[in-house]
Amino acid sequence: MPFIKIELTKEHITREQKQQLIKGITDLFTTILNKDPHLTHVVIQEVELDDWGYAGEQVSILRENGITADKK
Amino acid sequence: MPFIKIELTKEHITREQKQQLIKGITDLFTTILNKDPHLTHVVIQEVELDDWGYAGEQVSILRENGITADKK
Amino acid sequence: MPFIKIELTKEHITREQKQQLIKGITDLFTTILNKDPHLTHVVIQEVELDDWGYAGEQVSILRENGITADKK
Amino acid sequence: MPFIKIELTKEHITREQKQQLIKGITDLFTTILNKDPHLTHVVIQEVELDDWGYAGEQVSILRENGITADKK
Amino acid sequence: MPFIKIELTKEHITREQKQQLIKGITDLFTTILNKDPHLTHVVIQEVELDDWGYAGEQVSILRENGITADKK
Amino acid sequence: MPFIKIELTKEHITREQKQQLIKGITDLFTTILNKDPHLTHVVIQEVELDDWGYAGEQVSILRENGITADKK
Repeated sequence: MPFIKIELTKEHITREQKQQLIKGITDLFTTILNKDPHLTHVVIQEVELDDWGYAGEQVSILRENGITADKK
Repeated sequence: MPFIKIELTKEHITREQKQQLIKGITDLFTTILNKDPHLTHVVIQEVELDDWGYAGEQVSILRENGITADKK
Repeated sequence: MPFIKIELTKEHITREQKQQLIKGITDLFTTILNKDPHLTHVVIQEVELDDWGYAGEQVSILRENGITADKK
Repeated sequence: MPFIKIELTKEHITREQKQQLIKGITDLFTTILNKDPHLTHVVIQEVELDDWGYAGEQVSILRENGITADKK
Repeated sequence: MPFIKIELTKEHITREQKQQLIKGITDLFTTILNKDPHLTHVVIQEVELDDWGYAGEQVSILRENGITADKK
Repeated sequence: MPFIKIELTKEHITREQKQQLIKGITDLFTTILNKDPHLTHVVIQEVELDDWGYAGEQVSILRENGITADKK
């Protein structure tokens, strides 16, 4: 019975990317723990940039200053 | 001091139904555990169908295919 | 697809009381929203009294001072 | 590695107040626990008044009846 | 900035399996969303079987009756 | 009605430090948002190092390799 909750900043994630995350995470629980996917729920919550703080700063301000969360 | 968080798919729940859930759950904590209702908080979070995955599929796709969460 | 998370202070709740909460809450979702119980999950998390703060005080200290969460 | 999640009723909180909360909380973890702020995340989630229940009542109804959460 | 919280029933998951989940999920966020892994946190919370309810029953009781969450 | 949930790695935090966090955070909500402290709850959840992943690695492994979360 896994329940997985994802919180991430709201930055242009598409419906297809959400589906890929849901499928990929559910598959991990089947592969690694042999969990029945009918008992696995995944919930995605996008958070506005004003509502996420990192290192004491709103992410909206970090983004205005050109700081991203992208992999280099 | 109970705090109860409800996450459910966003599917036409009314204000009155929310109030019934809040009242019903708060009453359970008073009846079963003798909790002072002034220390019981209930929070409801509705989740868009694209953002909830079940069995590896977005619920929005399940609904398009006629699969509901209704009791039979 | 409801997922319900309960957080409450760890204060002598029995296995039977937990079962009553689980049954009672699941039934509310069936009665009020017609939800299939096979899609309803309820998780209970008991929190040590040192780890819950209310009005700026640890509940462990409130309890030492005779302040309870009981219904009067 | 602290992750702090704030849930509060949606009642006219400004962008600046959010920034003050984020900065203030992050600083507490640095001051009290010597945590590197680059590992501290703070997320704020505002909850509609219909979706928060207190003492068995929707906060929207409490507010209509003149009951606030303000400090006296 | 993703934060991923996993809740699952406490059933003999090993340290290595936890590491596989953490690595697998973090990689998904890098592959699908190009997220810097240094901003991705994954938290696993195992829940006692008495504390997880499914379909109105404690999972501990379901397990005693031979009902598992294994993939068939 | 704020509810604040703190998740952090379990690393020798004392009862007094927890009380300082609870007091400090509750005061911030009173100072910044004028919230009645009797409606503010703070919950602390310590997470075992095997159960927290950062950058795709268990924190227990990071700590074995001498990588801390301390402010430099």
